[in-house]
Amino acid sequence: MALGLACIASLLAFGLAGWLNSWVQKQPSDNQEVNRIGSLIQQGARTFLRREYSILGWFALGATILIILFLPRPFWLGGIGANLQLAAAYVTGAVFSGLAGYIGMTVATNSNTRTAQAAAQGMGSAFLTGFRGGAVMGMAVVGASLLGVTAVIFFFRDPSITLGFSLGASSLALFAKAGGGIFTKTADIAADLVGKVELGIPEDDPRNPAVIADNVGDNVGDVAGMGADLFDSHVASLSAALVLAAALDGGLGKNVDMVFVYGAVGLISSIIGVIAARLNQGGSPTSALNSSTYTTTGLYVVLSAIATAFFGFNWLYWSAAMVGLIVGTIIGITSDYFTNDAKSPVQQAARLSGQGPAFTIISGISYGLASVFPALVGIGVAALLSFVITNGIVPGTITDALFGISMAAVGMLSIVGMVISNDAYGPIVDNARGLVEMANLGDKALEVTDELDSAGNTVKAITKGFAIGAAGLTVIALLGAFLEEANAVLAEHALPLVEGFDVMNPAVFFGLLVGAAVPAVFSAMLMLGVNRNADRLVDEVHRQFREIKGLREGKAEPQYDRCITIATEGALKELIPAGLMAIIVTFVVGFIGGIPAVGGFLAGNIISGLLLALFMSNAGGMWDNAKKLVEAGNFGGKGSDAHKAAVIGDTVGDPCKDTAGPSINTQITVVSLVASLAVGLFALFSLF
Amino acid sequence: MALGLACIASLLAFGLAGWLNSWVQKQPSDNQEVNRIGSLIQQGARTFLRREYSILGWFALGATILIILFLPRPFWLGGIGANLQLAAAYVTGAVFSGLAGYIGMTVATNSNTRTAQAAAQGMGSAFLTGFRGGAVMGMAVVGASLLGVTAVIFFFRDPSITLGFSLGASSLALFAKAGGGIFTKTADIAADLVGKVELGIPEDDPRNPAVIADNVGDNVGDVAGMGADLFDSHVASLSAALVLAAALDGGLGKNVDMVFVYGAVGLISSIIGVIAARLNQGGSPTSALNSSTYTTTGLYVVLSAIATAFFGFNWLYWSAAMVGLIVGTIIGITSDYFTNDAKSPVQQAARLSGQGPAFTIISGISYGLASVFPALVGIGVAALLSFVITNGIVPGTITDALFGISMAAVGMLSIVGMVISNDAYGPIVDNARGLVEMANLGDKALEVTDELDSAGNTVKAITKGFAIGAAGLTVIALLGAFLEEANAVLAEHALPLVEGFDVMNPAVFFGLLVGAAVPAVFSAMLMLGVNRNADRLVDEVHRQFREIKGLREGKAEPQYDRCITIATEGALKELIPAGLMAIIVTFVVGFIGGIPAVGGFLAGNIISGLLLALFMSNAGGMWDNAKKLVEAGNFGGKGSDAHKAAVIGDTVGDPCKDTAGPSINTQITVVSLVASLAVGLFALFSLF
Repeated sequence: MALGLACIASLLAFGLAGWLNSWVQKQPSDNQEVNRIGSLIQQGARTFLRREYSILGWFALGATILIILFLPRPFWLGGIGANLQLAAAYVTGAVFSGLAGYIGMTVATNSNTRTAQAAAQGMGSAFLTGFRGGAVMGMAVVGASLLGVTAVIFFFRDPSITLGFSLGASSLALFAKAGGGIFTKTADIAADLVGKVELGIPEDDPRNPAVIADNVGDNVGDVAGMGADLFDSHVASLSAALVLAAALDGGLGKNVDMVFVYGAVGLISSIIGVIAARLNQGGSPTSALNSSTYTTTGLYVVLSAIATAFFGFNWLYWSAAMVGLIVGTIIGITSDYFTNDAKSPVQQAARLSGQGPAFTIISGISYGLASVFPALVGIGVAALLSFVITNGIVPGTITDALFGISMAAVGMLSIVGMVISNDAYGPIVDNARGLVEMANLGDKALEVTDELDSAGNTVKAITKGFAIGAAGLTVIALLGAFLEEANAVLAEHALPLVEGFDVMNPAVFFGLLVGAAVPAVFSAMLMLGVNRNADRLVDEVHRQFREIKGLREGKAEPQYDRCITIATEGALKELIPAGLMAIIVTFVVGFIGGIPAVGGFLAGNIISGLLLALFMSNAGGMWDNAKKLVEAGNFGGKGSDAHKAAVIGDTVGDPCKDTAGPSINTQITVVSLVASLAVGLFALFSLF
Repeated sequence: MALGLACIASLLAFGLAGWLNSWVQKQPSDNQEVNRIGSLIQQGARTFLRREYSILGWFALGATILIILFLPRPFWLGGIGANLQLAAAYVTGAVFSGLAGYIGMTVATNSNTRTAQAAAQGMGSAFLTGFRGGAVMGMAVVGASLLGVTAVIFFFRDPSITLGFSLGASSLALFAKAGGGIFTKTADIAADLVGKVELGIPEDDPRNPAVIADNVGDNVGDVAGMGADLFDSHVASLSAALVLAAALDGGLGKNVDMVFVYGAVGLISSIIGVIAARLNQGGSPTSALNSSTYTTTGLYVVLSAIATAFFGFNWLYWSAAMVGLIVGTIIGITSDYFTNDAKSPVQQAARLSGQGPAFTIISGISYGLASVFPALVGIGVAALLSFVITNGIVPGTITDALFGISMAAVGMLSIVGMVISNDAYGPIVDNARGLVEMANLGDKALEVTDELDSAGNTVKAITKGFAIGAAGLTVIALLGAFLEEANAVLAEHALPLVEGFDVMNPAVFFGLLVGAAVPAVFSAMLMLGVNRNADRLVDEVHRQFREIKGLREGKAEPQYDRCITIATEGALKELIPAGLMAIIVTFVVGFIGGIPAVGGFLAGNIISGLLLALFMSNAGGMWDNAKKLVEAGNFGGKGSDAHKAAVIGDTVGDPCKDTAGPSINTQITVVSLVASLAVGLFALFSLF
């Protein structure tokens, strides 16, 4: 019955996504210039995704073969049967993740032209077009996640296999996020450097050869990458909860049902929230977005309580889910403090920019570091509280404790359908703003899209904090799933069980230290990749201005596609080593120090990963908004020294907040899942 | 006998320090201008230290009262007797630490004038003057550390009390390092911003009112602060090893003796290395510094082996000490890779500076993040190897394992007398270079001091890596000491013992997350402090140029002392909240989650602290050397766009590498010691 409910909710979400998509398609779209540029962007985005997916296809094929041979059990130990099930789940997860990104990207590039044209008519319909375009993504992603996990349980009746589905989703998300992130920032930095800084032409001037790549980047990085990222978090939170629930139930029981019911109720709440969303006459887009989030949250609280009463689930686990929901909101609000231009950090950074770029940078690094405190403490408190609630003051078993934490993660991610809808709205209206500028749709349309865009940025800061908080709790739950999987394997081989991962054990400590180093190296590789790639693209833009006669005067068309190709090829070249490094180090640590070292490795990876992801996202967001604050006429305004300094800060922040920061989340998830699935190898073949 | 040997070694070190000091005093010093400026610097440094110590005196008094009332046991539980012993040790540690800083600073400000004047004669004697000035510091610090710990054991016969001595040393070091770090970078940034950037006058131009403060900063930050820092690490490594040795011996036994003998042998090796150091005709200062380090290391290997054979110590622990020594050297060499201008990272950063400051900054952040990998892995491998060596493949008790790790820390820190001598040489010759420039001692002297200075920078990169590696192993050992202290208290109250800190326990995980956030917030507070303070000092320098007629033309004298006062007062205002925050959060975590949460807190603190300290030190060093590479005529040379960008990078790096980075080490140590001493309170009065 719980599986049926989850299945129905998924199908409802797909139905809504289809309806919203056709609604968007029906919006007026008759401006030739907008459509021409829009189709350049759409073609560019497709080119990128096609090339990316064709390379990732090979990667997934290789991974599938390795899974069939070795995971969860090597072929010479008779593992082929179980391995084939896992491989099937893995491939499904990868395909679903790719599809979710592709659909979202297609709809987003359809909606941006229509939002731009609606903006000429007024705020209300432009808002709705942008929002509903984003909601297609939200519904498709969460529907696919819930349906996929349901199907895996329906066919295989084994929660461990959902970890394979989750790994398929997250390994693809890792590369989609990192590759898209490198691409988008390559294009953004190169377009800004040559356009704004060297030539002094506006942000979206069509004479700039990198400008279409920049718009493509918004779609492949922010829409497709973000969708893959949250797909992966949602699947991972469900998988971790299911593994722990099955350990408690001793198979598929009431707690497993509860996970599905809560997932279904969350999706239904999001569906209603999406349908209800509109911009009232004279209302602000920010409060329209927020009020639909509040509607969804309120509905979830009520519906999940009703479901708990109806099915007779444990109220303590319901409380844990509520703790997750509340703490997620608090983390979102605190990260808003560090990136909101009405608050002290952004204002200080903008003011100090007048003293020179060094002060801008030092401020951003400092506030970024300080911003990790509320979020890390929030995640810690959520873990502790959900544990205390579910187990009382006296500790129960580790599995009880961890299932409580995993329910907090499920609670936090319950409204993810709405979060994604809000998040995908951002790049759509950002693109629409660019289209309005490039196609000269007039000042009124520009004003409308400016306001829509600014709402997108505000909401984005909150949802980003939310996403990191959810990922934090999810990976803690995945650590629990790793322990369960480890003990299942150890019991099977009649080896002594592992009770936990004691930091006083030097193997665990070794793992902690190495695990902590991985996200640092991973983000360094991505950021250096952006540097190198932007360097290449700047050379290309310079070449075009040098060689194409009349380009500077706007009499000749730049070769947009050359820029897209260069940025794409560069991004793909840079992303593979970073992703592989994280996976390979996991195996090296496992083969050296065995299960205790891997447990420490995962914990170190989580801690340093959350720290760096929060630091980079918030520092980057702060620099971005400090620049906007100066551009709005404060501390000297555009063209002042403060502005130049703030632009430098923003450029530094770009790869932090849009490439490295959000990819780290996915890196942690991938490594946690790889460890859980390869635990049999570490149990049998480690050096110490 | 072991105590006697340690005592004799300390007295030998003091004797050598006295002889070196009088040797330095006897060097020619008849240039009036050099002496005049030198005495300005010396007065400024004394002013700073006097004000700092008078505030820290109040802090230490408050801490002493709190210790007498509450630590290790509250007064109403009859703790006064034990508390008085601890308080006495605490005060002695604080006084010794202050004295070590004061002596080092006095000698350094005596040596810099003489080094400057010797530079006019030639390289050989200038090198020796600078080196021997630094060695006074090295000998005084290590002698005081060993003597202090010996005295505590001699009088109280209880290794736990050495933790109090260690806390006295480290709590003073925390403020000395942070206060000195804020002061020095305040002055440096302000002097550079107004001098080099706005007015285009050379680095050490006496017309710049902030220039004396800048030179004072080199002494109070680099000499006094660094001395206090390494004093604290050395004491902490000995204390942690002694606590664990006593737990193994069941009191004062052979392993306790071994710690003292190894400490004494290390100091004797350093004494011989210092005496042997000289610059051969035509040799380079870098290789002279390195060869004296190699001499010391080689002597330590041989002498410690002889001592092990003679006293019949356990060879396995000797091997663990050797592992520490080797890994320390490897960490030093790898951090050199990221900051050496002959290697790829610095060259890439310098080259990319041509594209603008954003690229300089992104490179530095990226390489800084990547640089944490070898060091963290190195510390992890040292922990794992020393554990495997001492316990074999099959784990022994936790205490065995941790004692092995603590011996690796002792081994790594054994040659610290030589490390400090090399380190203190750096700021002395840097100051001498400034004096040569300010007093116009001629091109030859400038050339000599330039070469001496560059050797100082090269050696500094290695010793900094070494210091962080040593601190890393030391704090792991301190975590072990915390566990021992916790169990001693729990046993006394007949409470169940703690076996370790399992990351799967939500209280431990809560601690891990909060502990990881603390170094981030701590460094943010210090760096924002530098920003605010530099802002104040820039205003003052502007005021002087505006109000003092003839200053710009060099016809009037600036008010150097006003700048020193402003930088001092600002630094003291900024340092207190950061230090207190770290200590208060420790108590909050302890009172909420009890001993498991504190164990997790310490582990999280260590991991994130090492990560951030390495990131900041290496990124800062890289930016510094990239700027120097450009200034040496590469990628456009001085005055080019690349140079401007590189200067911005260097300014960002300054508070990273000289304020926040090195203070984090001390922050971790202080928190670990506070936790160990307050463990009785957490055992009895925690919420969960």
